[in-house]
Amino acid sequence: MSVQRPSEDGLIARFFAPIAGEGALGLKDDAARLTSKPDHDLVLTVDALVERVHFLPEDAPGSIARKALGVNVSDLAAKGADPAGFLLSLALPDDWTESWLAEFAEGLGKASRDFACPLLGGDTVKAKGPLTLSVTAVGQVPAGRMVLRTTAKPDDVICVTGTIGDAALGLKLHSGPDWAEGLSPEERAHLADRYLHPRPRHRLAAALRSHASAAMDVSDGLAGDLAKMMRASGVGALIEADRVPLSGAAAKAVQASPDLLDLALTGGDDYEILCTVPEKNLDSFRKEADTVGITLSVIGRVVSGHDLPVFRINGLERRYDVGSYQHF
Amino acid sequence: MSVQRPSEDGLIARFFAPIAGEGALGLKDDAARLTSKPDHDLVLTVDALVERVHFLPEDAPGSIARKALGVNVSDLAAKGADPAGFLLSLALPDDWTESWLAEFAEGLGKASRDFACPLLGGDTVKAKGPLTLSVTAVGQVPAGRMVLRTTAKPDDVICVTGTIGDAALGLKLHSGPDWAEGLSPEERAHLADRYLHPRPRHRLAAALRSHASAAMDVSDGLAGDLAKMMRASGVGALIEADRVPLSGAAAKAVQASPDLLDLALTGGDDYEILCTVPEKNLDSFRKEADTVGITLSVIGRVVSGHDLPVFRINGLERRYDVGSYQHF
Repeated sequence: MSVQRPSEDGLIARFFAPIAGEGALGLKDDAARLTSKPDHDLVLTVDALVERVHFLPEDAPGSIARKALGVNVSDLAAKGADPAGFLLSLALPDDWTESWLAEFAEGLGKASRDFACPLLGGDTVKAKGPLTLSVTAVGQVPAGRMVLRTTAKPDDVICVTGTIGDAALGLKLHSGPDWAEGLSPEERAHLADRYLHPRPRHRLAAALRSHASAAMDVSDGLAGDLAKMMRASGVGALIEADRVPLSGAAAKAVQASPDLLDLALTGGDDYEILCTVPEKNLDSFRKEADTVGITLSVIGRVVSGHDLPVFRINGLERRYDVGSYQHF
Repeated sequence: MSVQRPSEDGLIARFFAPIAGEGALGLKDDAARLTSKPDHDLVLTVDALVERVHFLPEDAPGSIARKALGVNVSDLAAKGADPAGFLLSLALPDDWTESWLAEFAEGLGKASRDFACPLLGGDTVKAKGPLTLSVTAVGQVPAGRMVLRTTAKPDDVICVTGTIGDAALGLKLHSGPDWAEGLSPEERAHLADRYLHPRPRHRLAAALRSHASAAMDVSDGLAGDLAKMMRASGVGALIEADRVPLSGAAAKAVQASPDLLDLALTGGDDYEILCTVPEKNLDSFRKEADTVGITLSVIGRVVSGHDLPVFRINGLERRYDVGSYQHF
């Protein structure tokens, strides 16, 4: 006996229409409508997530939804853009279940409220392969104020938000490493949560466009992403590794196993903001970041030249020439 | 020996950056920038295509690219929106090749020029599954002028562009049906081409927003899509089946095998525009459609009530209660 499956329209009406924003027109039309603010530019980004590449099959459906939206909102934030909405493309494997989809939609709805980024539209298809999601996020910035990667200037200070390396360490926990034995359950939970649940810094968008000379989000590892941004700007960087902010859990792990510092600096999934700031703007930038509850750390400075960024670690100089994580 | 694969950044620089539009920032940043026209709304749509569901593995890479973009531009056109750009999310199977990707990108570039819809951004990932593409297209309409599905009114005339049923017949050709034997090679090629290469009616967008009361594109079959639009508008419809425009090839096929009329009326992938037009606008609408080289056919009329649309076929009345094609 075959199980009766709901139609695509039925799925949309039941799971997605309740979490959709106003411009989605109830998800009943061919397309969504977005009235953009006068004198604003749009910022658009898309990121795809594939099971076993970007998340694990055992991850909770709501966590997967939150990550898919979060990584896109993180891109918008890095550009100084306020979220305006998103579209979801979902390729479901044959064995999808309604309970999975219900949890997924609930998590997506919660994330969209937390990130102030309403669902505008989507497409759901079946595919004989791993679960694959693609989110296109749309943001808005005052005209001409998008923050680019290409505009870092020598002598700008280099800042990151939050803490670095937690997600990469959190992912490593799955293999049961020795260093994890010295961590408390809370510390392990913190690291695991940072891998599962990106915390996009959308509340920093306004401060970034007012004060940063260049920015990107750290998704493929601090060292590699910094190298990308510096190369795009035609400059170099000097980083004091001991100023790279680590959480208590990450610091303890690195103390137990010093090699993990490399993982923290090169591992992916931080979804923090890396930015360069002219020194004269630093105090105001810090104040605005404080106001929205985001911690900033100054980790180094932009320098002239085209060399790979230098990390000073315990008096030695290190260049990470591996680049950032590559999907191919 | 493992074969050296290019990095994602390498792929983007080589294949996609050359076909990208200005707002793509060379595909080197986290996001694209789109300066929207003053006093315009944005229209956003996303459609995913999966190998063996929406296209065949043997289809040319350039055709797949053209279809992925075309079906989205078709959605924009139906809403009266002029294309502004698109983002591509591409999940490549393990066995992708550079020559496949080169042809894909070339076809995508050509389609984006033909449809006046530049590439703004994208994401490329690997997935152990069928090739899956997702395109998000962005269009613009003068503020408040998006053409909806929900606003058809009793007594409006119902029009479709071009011809109906070609693509569904073209797909059937793969199974070598008897009726195909009476067709010339050119007629078979015409039908096959209509399946492979949607012809989005983006040039009709301005005429639609000036004259149509409601519109959608015909992607899941005329009968089902008409039923959807009428239901969304709270009205019914009376269609004269012999006024539904068929190509010479389709007419010949239907003559050889009269049952194929049902396939033509219910099969998918037409990517024509179905719209309702107040009678007083019809002449002007026709004239504008002529100007951009698009054929319009009046196929029936909107009626009051909530019944399924009625198709008059050879003096009989037929209701297609199967609805349109469902992916689930």
